[in-house]
Amino acid sequence: MRHLEGAYALIFKSQHYPNELIACKRGSPLLLGVKELNEDICNGSAFSDSKFVSKDGAPKELFLSSDANALIEHTKKVLVIEDGEVVHLKDGGVSILKFENDKGRRGSGLSRPASVQRALSVLEMEVEQINKGKYEHYMQKEIHEQPESLTTTMRGRLICGGSCKSQTVLLGGLKDHLKTIRRSRRIVFIGCGTSYNAALAARPILEELSGVPVTMEIASDLLDRQGPIYREDTTVFVSQSGETADTLRALEYALENGALCVGITNTVGSAIARHTHCGVHINAGCEIGVASTKAYTSQIVVMAMLALAIGADTISNQARREAIIDGLFDLPSKVREALKLDQEMKELAKLLMNEQSLLVFGRGYNYATALEGALKVKEVALMHSEGILAGEMKHGPLALVDETLPIFVIATHDACFSKQQSVIHQLHARKGRLIVMCSKGDAASVCPGESCRVIEVPHVEDCLQPVVNIVPLQLLAYHLTVLRGYNVDQPRNLAKSVTTE
Amino acid sequence: MRHLEGAYALIFKSQHYPNELIACKRGSPLLLGVKELNEDICNGSAFSDSKFVSKDGAPKELFLSSDANALIEHTKKVLVIEDGEVVHLKDGGVSILKFENDKGRRGSGLSRPASVQRALSVLEMEVEQINKGKYEHYMQKEIHEQPESLTTTMRGRLICGGSCKSQTVLLGGLKDHLKTIRRSRRIVFIGCGTSYNAALAARPILEELSGVPVTMEIASDLLDRQGPIYREDTTVFVSQSGETADTLRALEYALENGALCVGITNTVGSAIARHTHCGVHINAGCEIGVASTKAYTSQIVVMAMLALAIGADTISNQARREAIIDGLFDLPSKVREALKLDQEMKELAKLLMNEQSLLVFGRGYNYATALEGALKVKEVALMHSEGILAGEMKHGPLALVDETLPIFVIATHDACFSKQQSVIHQLHARKGRLIVMCSKGDAASVCPGESCRVIEVPHVEDCLQPVVNIVPLQLLAYHLTVLRGYNVDQPRNLAKSVTTE
Repeated sequence: MRHLEGAYALIFKSQHYPNELIACKRGSPLLLGVKELNEDICNGSAFSDSKFVSKDGAPKELFLSSDANALIEHTKKVLVIEDGEVVHLKDGGVSILKFENDKGRRGSGLSRPASVQRALSVLEMEVEQINKGKYEHYMQKEIHEQPESLTTTMRGRLICGGSCKSQTVLLGGLKDHLKTIRRSRRIVFIGCGTSYNAALAARPILEELSGVPVTMEIASDLLDRQGPIYREDTTVFVSQSGETADTLRALEYALENGALCVGITNTVGSAIARHTHCGVHINAGCEIGVASTKAYTSQIVVMAMLALAIGADTISNQARREAIIDGLFDLPSKVREALKLDQEMKELAKLLMNEQSLLVFGRGYNYATALEGALKVKEVALMHSEGILAGEMKHGPLALVDETLPIFVIATHDACFSKQQSVIHQLHARKGRLIVMCSKGDAASVCPGESCRVIEVPHVEDCLQPVVNIVPLQLLAYHLTVLRGYNVDQPRNLAKSVTTE
Repeated sequence: MRHLEGAYALIFKSQHYPNELIACKRGSPLLLGVKELNEDICNGSAFSDSKFVSKDGAPKELFLSSDANALIEHTKKVLVIEDGEVVHLKDGGVSILKFENDKGRRGSGLSRPASVQRALSVLEMEVEQINKGKYEHYMQKEIHEQPESLTTTMRGRLICGGSCKSQTVLLGGLKDHLKTIRRSRRIVFIGCGTSYNAALAARPILEELSGVPVTMEIASDLLDRQGPIYREDTTVFVSQSGETADTLRALEYALENGALCVGITNTVGSAIARHTHCGVHINAGCEIGVASTKAYTSQIVVMAMLALAIGADTISNQARREAIIDGLFDLPSKVREALKLDQEMKELAKLLMNEQSLLVFGRGYNYATALEGALKVKEVALMHSEGILAGEMKHGPLALVDETLPIFVIATHDACFSKQQSVIHQLHARKGRLIVMCSKGDAASVCPGESCRVIEVPHVEDCLQPVVNIVPLQLLAYHLTVLRGYNVDQPRNLAKSVTTE
């Protein structure tokens, strides 16, 4: 282990040491699942042939995995293996050794490893969460359960006062740190892929309510640049799995530089949840599909609540905050309404299934929606789609526009609406093949002369609109993938959690 | 004018007022060129039939244009018309009226316009600058004159002490503001399109030498979000023309918020040059091709010099600064060397000319190179190319990789090299069709088993590498465009300066 570079989780077996097993890890996650067979010896588990008897005589089965989802059908009791620990299974016993000194950290490399006593933790998860139920694919299931996952995300966190006049937000894990966050020099959002997009969607409202400049950092880019992070910064780490390698390295970097570190993850006990100073779990439930869907919308909602909590002490924003809280209460039903577009998006997917390219234009709150929608189509439908900031259209992308290239424009009603109308006019003047997403009732004002395909979505408070707007794009990506005959839940070349750099 | 919204420059002619002309503008540029025919009445100008006699009897020709390049072949004497002014040509005379109160600013909308006396300014430009010379297209000429334009950009600004031990950078327009900039809370780069990419390329070195966090803002996105800009911020506005509408609006926004505003433009007397507190001209010479090439490299060099000037007071960076200054002295010759790849890039363009899509991967200093290279291919060759941060590869883009899609990877030697090697290995494992750009002599270590096409570029100091690396991509975009039969200098749907939002 002292000689290896990079992140890994390894299991060794040797013919010279039969009936022994060694496991170790650095950076990547590794879980040891422990099943006491006394408890439920008759539940028909198929693993009785690998039955395993520990020293004290109680029969046990042991499982090693990088992901809790693989263990949950066998046991909920797990040990989270830490960096530098070695798990040794021998003669029915488990011992965990801790190598005190990392490679090169101290002079002597010969100190004996110490044996470690660890308590089991219990996974808070049910087997049902990893069943597909009535759906054909996990991604489809996860798209359609967003009204429920959003409800769970908000449960207990939106507080309605006695008269319903004093609505507020309570994020237990953060309440002792809000003062520090409000006084930060900057708030720095750090994430990768979909998590980065979710943070981008929440950025405008956080800037508006906190007044603190919000900087966006893709984790790998921050590390490549070794960009400045200081004690006065609040860094917010966003990751569904809580194990994303780059985000985790960026967290280490921010800790070294003394910044306040806040974690936003979907996985209790994950590396990011453990190593940040404080944080919020998004409680979206287990997400199995490699393309993140319900975690994205729950992340946005959590970050909107974060903005509300940080801004809770200013009077001038009070009406705005109350409007957003009302919007949050309504959000699950609006998302349910947006899900009714399923059939319409399937029709659209049929039209687009043989295309090579797709552009998605958005701006303001929905710049992130454009990036995330394009990413979904790219990663599961394997179509070259690109999310483009509508304001940059004339600085290059407009050259691509002709009668053949399909263009998806997000133009729901907000402060940027008239600018976005002008974008549509110009794309139209170049005979662009437009698909326009607009707020209910706006069809006539975005689409002169019924010349383009219009998708109407329910209107919500502007900063929450990205949560509704991404739904049709998720459906589109899903149907495109099925129609094009690709694997929905395990797209080519991709892994659910990127645990290596 | 009081009723119009948005930016414009307009000329009116009416049959009811023959021999009169009215011109006015807001936001967009408008120049009045004045040619005294006494001076050079016999130089064979073809405009003698439009000869025009002013009140004092001296024959004159008058020209109205939004761009100095259109005037230079006729006259160098110009009047820059300001917002709210009305130019009235009548009976051989020119009068300029100033409308004191903007729409709604004061109670009475009826104040009489005041007549304005203005002095002519002289354009610092030669007709030769707008000739193509031996080249077929302006873009080609501008790519190939980069060794000269870079030399002009640096002329008089790199100061070599007596013993050549005390090299330093002198940016006259900034020297009184350096202290303020060093103490900023943030440095915020604001630009659009290629100018934004140039700022992105310079960001890491500015962060390294200044220690101040550098935030990147696409001008239109900053305006859409109304993002926080404060008195303690230094905002840097980057625009070749100095007239880019969104950047100009962002400048107004930053001025309102009290930030120090620095301009980096290629156009003396442009709106951004006039309205910023201080700034640097890039002196790249007139750029005619709509796709910016030499302005991009000069912008990076100016921003690298800006970083040197801001960091000039720290001792710990002295060796690094001197290495960069040495690198700057060498840069024109290295770019000249890179231009020798012309034929090789033409061959590559022949291979790629029928492709639909192209991905360009870069990271660190060359993340910007990937974005800018892809933008060039997109805007002139009309091919859907996308610049991708290599660190994000596993978060989606990797799904697109197969045997058919061409992928350009920038992997010149710097601190990220080993990470980039790992990216190449992974793309290779997915049978990606790779074209790898590497430093001279690195071919064997980036391309195992000669399985991919390699482009070797000269090695320079890491932070200046983007200036060299973009050259082959500019050449590729140029040759692709010619081979695909598109207009090089006026790509479909695009304008040189985007003077409307």
